[in-house]
Amino acid sequence: MEKKKVLILMGSENDRAAMEECRKVLADLGVECELRVASAHRTPGKVAELAVAAEGRGFGVIVAGAGLAAHLAGAVAAHSLLPVIGVPLEAGPLQGLDALLSTVQMPRGVPVATMAIGTHGAANAGLFAAAILALSDPALRGRLETLRRDMAERLERQDAAVRG
Amino acid sequence: MEKKKVLILMGSENDRAAMEECRKVLADLGVECELRVASAHRTPGKVAELAVAAEGRGFGVIVAGAGLAAHLAGAVAAHSLLPVIGVPLEAGPLQGLDALLSTVQMPRGVPVATMAIGTHGAANAGLFAAAILALSDPALRGRLETLRRDMAERLERQDAAVRG
Amino acid sequence: MEKKKVLILMGSENDRAAMEECRKVLADLGVECELRVASAHRTPGKVAELAVAAEGRGFGVIVAGAGLAAHLAGAVAAHSLLPVIGVPLEAGPLQGLDALLSTVQMPRGVPVATMAIGTHGAANAGLFAAAILALSDPALRGRLETLRRDMAERLERQDAAVRG
Amino acid sequence: MEKKKVLILMGSENDRAAMEECRKVLADLGVECELRVASAHRTPGKVAELAVAAEGRGFGVIVAGAGLAAHLAGAVAAHSLLPVIGVPLEAGPLQGLDALLSTVQMPRGVPVATMAIGTHGAANAGLFAAAILALSDPALRGRLETLRRDMAERLERQDAAVRG
Amino acid sequence: MEKKKVLILMGSENDRAAMEECRKVLADLGVECELRVASAHRTPGKVAELAVAAEGRGFGVIVAGAGLAAHLAGAVAAHSLLPVIGVPLEAGPLQGLDALLSTVQMPRGVPVATMAIGTHGAANAGLFAAAILALSDPALRGRLETLRRDMAERLERQDAAVRG
Amino acid sequence: MEKKKVLILMGSENDRAAMEECRKVLADLGVECELRVASAHRTPGKVAELAVAAEGRGFGVIVAGAGLAAHLAGAVAAHSLLPVIGVPLEAGPLQGLDALLSTVQMPRGVPVATMAIGTHGAANAGLFAAAILALSDPALRGRLETLRRDMAERLERQDAAVRG
Amino acid sequence: MEKKKVLILMGSENDRAAMEECRKVLADLGVECELRVASAHRTPGKVAELAVAAEGRGFGVIVAGAGLAAHLAGAVAAHSLLPVIGVPLEAGPLQGLDALLSTVQMPRGVPVATMAIGTHGAANAGLFAAAILALSDPALRGRLETLRRDMAERLERQDAAVRG
Amino acid sequence: MEKKKVLILMGSENDRAAMEECRKVLADLGVECELRVASAHRTPGKVAELAVAAEGRGFGVIVAGAGLAAHLAGAVAAHSLLPVIGVPLEAGPLQGLDALLSTVQMPRGVPVATMAIGTHGAANAGLFAAAILALSDPALRGRLETLRRDMAERLERQDAAVRG
Repeated sequence: MEKKKVLILMGSENDRAAMEECRKVLADLGVECELRVASAHRTPGKVAELAVAAEGRGFGVIVAGAGLAAHLAGAVAAHSLLPVIGVPLEAGPLQGLDALLSTVQMPRGVPVATMAIGTHGAANAGLFAAAILALSDPALRGRLETLRRDMAERLERQDAAVRG
Repeated sequence: MEKKKVLILMGSENDRAAMEECRKVLADLGVECELRVASAHRTPGKVAELAVAAEGRGFGVIVAGAGLAAHLAGAVAAHSLLPVIGVPLEAGPLQGLDALLSTVQMPRGVPVATMAIGTHGAANAGLFAAAILALSDPALRGRLETLRRDMAERLERQDAAVRG
Repeated sequence: MEKKKVLILMGSENDRAAMEECRKVLADLGVECELRVASAHRTPGKVAELAVAAEGRGFGVIVAGAGLAAHLAGAVAAHSLLPVIGVPLEAGPLQGLDALLSTVQMPRGVPVATMAIGTHGAANAGLFAAAILALSDPALRGRLETLRRDMAERLERQDAAVRG
Repeated sequence: MEKKKVLILMGSENDRAAMEECRKVLADLGVECELRVASAHRTPGKVAELAVAAEGRGFGVIVAGAGLAAHLAGAVAAHSLLPVIGVPLEAGPLQGLDALLSTVQMPRGVPVATMAIGTHGAANAGLFAAAILALSDPALRGRLETLRRDMAERLERQDAAVRG
Repeated sequence: MEKKKVLILMGSENDRAAMEECRKVLADLGVECELRVASAHRTPGKVAELAVAAEGRGFGVIVAGAGLAAHLAGAVAAHSLLPVIGVPLEAGPLQGLDALLSTVQMPRGVPVATMAIGTHGAANAGLFAAAILALSDPALRGRLETLRRDMAERLERQDAAVRG
Repeated sequence: MEKKKVLILMGSENDRAAMEECRKVLADLGVECELRVASAHRTPGKVAELAVAAEGRGFGVIVAGAGLAAHLAGAVAAHSLLPVIGVPLEAGPLQGLDALLSTVQMPRGVPVATMAIGTHGAANAGLFAAAILALSDPALRGRLETLRRDMAERLERQDAAVRG
Repeated sequence: MEKKKVLILMGSENDRAAMEECRKVLADLGVECELRVASAHRTPGKVAELAVAAEGRGFGVIVAGAGLAAHLAGAVAAHSLLPVIGVPLEAGPLQGLDALLSTVQMPRGVPVATMAIGTHGAANAGLFAAAILALSDPALRGRLETLRRDMAERLERQDAAVRG
Repeated sequence: MEKKKVLILMGSENDRAAMEECRKVLADLGVECELRVASAHRTPGKVAELAVAAEGRGFGVIVAGAGLAAHLAGAVAAHSLLPVIGVPLEAGPLQGLDALLSTVQMPRGVPVATMAIGTHGAANAGLFAAAILALSDPALRGRLETLRRDMAERLERQDAAVRG
């Protein structure tokens, strides 16, 4: 069976820096992904097409990052049965609280798995997508385990430095 | 020129009581309207179709009411150049604050005219739709003026009662 | 029939940068507008006069932008039957949340069509005003359509750039 | 010199129960007051007239209670140099947070003295109005002192009861 | 390959009504699950044990629902590489806003996929868990598709009823 | 009768820049005032002494500015029957929302007249204190009227500049 | 050495039901305590006296519960070097969020140890006071351990019941 | 009896600047402490070990500082009967409001004594820990008294400077 890929969508070029974190995490884990710009409000037809076609094109998970009235993840989830991960991005004066509520408070029947606000939420979206794909990919699971062990070791070194 | 109608959309039957306020306001003002159920997440294709067809079917304004991660008005605005009025409805524990932010914080390029949260926001959506249509309908403008005068007189009677 | 104009009000000179976005959007669409400073609290009589006179002076829509306890749009709506669009501006420590609630939570009977907080809300106010006027101005409607198509094409180019 | 009175305004009959608390506090303190209904949005001309005339009619303080986008106190303050006290009332899903911000976040130059949200804020508005008038009315000051002593004694009795 | 199960954890018996919605959704989809009570604060060792053992016991996804300072999902995610879904539950005066932020704002490295606040978030957790497992279970994917089609048809019937 | 003075308290030297705005407004209006540092938490005895002594020392109004858990105005109001004006200051990460709620949500019986958050709230506290004292000082009332007229004229000049 | 007692203060009789939870927890643990009514705003002198005298009267910890602009715990902490625990209580429309911020956001130098909002925060205040006193009371520490074990066992029984 | 020490935990090196304030306060008061890095999510086993061992290693109080979904203090409290003090740190777009709610809203049975958000909350955690230990250490109590007196004197000097 071919490995499933991850489709990463963002609402505009402004969101690129944050969503590149997601791509980088996945690339480091050896997961293939495709980064795309599509807006729930400015190119809704394209969002629908990308979402509908994703499964057939070999994607296993879709990540969508957007700010403000962040409808992108919900719009994708409305058009696909794949797991959809939403990343609320910081944009505008409310600093992502609007995007968080717009992403997480989905109605019964169409879930969006919401991550933390901003760049580290985008990174976590990559990790979560990998955790999903790792269910049928033991090598990927092994790399996730290594990553987590590295993270713990980094903290141990910080602890040693702080103890002095 | 035929009179333009108002299309009133709601995300589910649960929103009916609130959105009937909008219909009632418009009916009392002699504006024809059509009340429909369509969900940005559960029947997104239908939302797009209704929005795209609205202008050709004689609608001049679209009102959309939804709760929680209220994407309905935004989804409609993404598919139509008609003025779209959003009504954030009370649903769930955050009492409409989520719906307000999801409706009002639209990105540059695709505005949604947002009303107050809940039932009286729905009534105001009817009045605002009528104010738009009244720009080319002097009789309707006259009825709006009467309505406003009645409202002021009602307040004067309250004042008289309170003064005792 | 003469083309209707848009009256743009702001509460103080501090709001000018934001509200110029609204003027610019309308100018680009060929809609005539007038930019004015009037404060609901510091020159309330002038606000009332401008609002009352607007219809007779050929305005079809009024846009009002203000920050903090943003009463300007509401004060205008209290004195005119024209559609009034409110833009909550960022000012002070609450970053526009106060202005948003002061603008959108209007009581039953006197609606204000509220846009997103800040500069892009001001731009969207211009678009929404144009959408209203376009109902009786097919050429304007055509320019709105072009604008939206341009916006979509800009996003397509962003997508092409991101795909690499 | 004649004793100054207190003008109590409310935006609608719905606010009467809360604002009667204010009247009762003032009546108990022997301060004459007048309770009126006037709405910043539905009868703005009347609000302006009442505010402008207040000083000449013998009022020394104006109290204004309103809910939602509570503009009443600000509208009064815009038309009078008298001290204006605002009472944000609970109405609608945001439970008075909207009214609080709409009342307190006044721009530089036109202050509104804001009380707590709801009924006990209305009662405190009465006390604060009395404290202002007491500056030139020693008998009233004496009654305020008695009231405060009674309050302290009531608490002492509660304490005695709780100690058992 | 044996079908993976879903482990559903809740912080106390009080959360049972909400989390039963999750179990019911999964049962209706033919996904086996196990419902358990374990608290991040009152039985932290048990939470760790359940999380650590989950993968070996045949679970593919863990759902954790909790209210207030909702640490349960995060505590589980700290001890497992499986995808962890968090459901913030309504409890106490802040109505789930505390639980939402405690669940979603996870630090970089340990994601929790957060659902909407309350009962329908619990139901969506079931759907999302099923969407994950459906990636390697075409029959389950088919049942999800049926479910979504049924949901759309229910909405169509609502629409027909509303149109009258 | 001697003119009453205004006592301006602040919780620490950090609040000085904001509270000097209050002093400046009062100085420009010819109202004598005294600026003092006293903290409800660090020098509570001094706060009580200043509050108790204020009336006898010729003060007619007390203004208190503080940030965070802003108890200063409430502590003063607990020890004096004079009108107490509270200014919630921006300090710390919540940007004055904590100070606003700590100042305005006073219990029944001990009102604090709350101004907007931050520096312009401090300026408004000066204006409000002057409005209180102007009730028995016609010359001061005249200066307030001039100030307000100047403010309106400044806005008119802004309007002229914007109209071009 | 005599065992230290816990002083429990509340701002009014309305807070009694919540604060009795604190007393009950302490009584069950064999810690002596005294429940008193004293208000930072209505009987500030009494609060100061109780706080100043507490150490000499054999108290080791002070618990203070209050709602709205909850200054009680801060006022106590300003007058005592004993550990002070604050319990923000639900009162009024903001449901304790005001009390939480008023209690927790203390300035540098005068800490208040803040518990969760409401009744279970009051119970936790009792547990926390006991944890402090247990540092020099091994028997009390033992009872705390038993309590925690009982709590864990109760959860185990809930788990057994849920597993069926 | 040997003097008890304070264990200071932080979730990552990023929190070091804030938590050093806590260490400095304690060092100045002559309280021995140990600063450690351990994360509830990245090294949960280590958190549990440190918490379980703390009492035996001579610690009397544990302070835990963390940002975002700040679970550290709660995780420590779940594994120890010692008094646990939580410091919500500013991190990310919500500026510590998420950390505050995640720290303070602990369920019944496992209290965390929560300080103000950020650096001065960390300093206050040091003071509060010292206040606990001072119950059985009169010399430490004396130093706390000196500190508070110094603080009051510093304010008196500020007052003198401001009075001019």
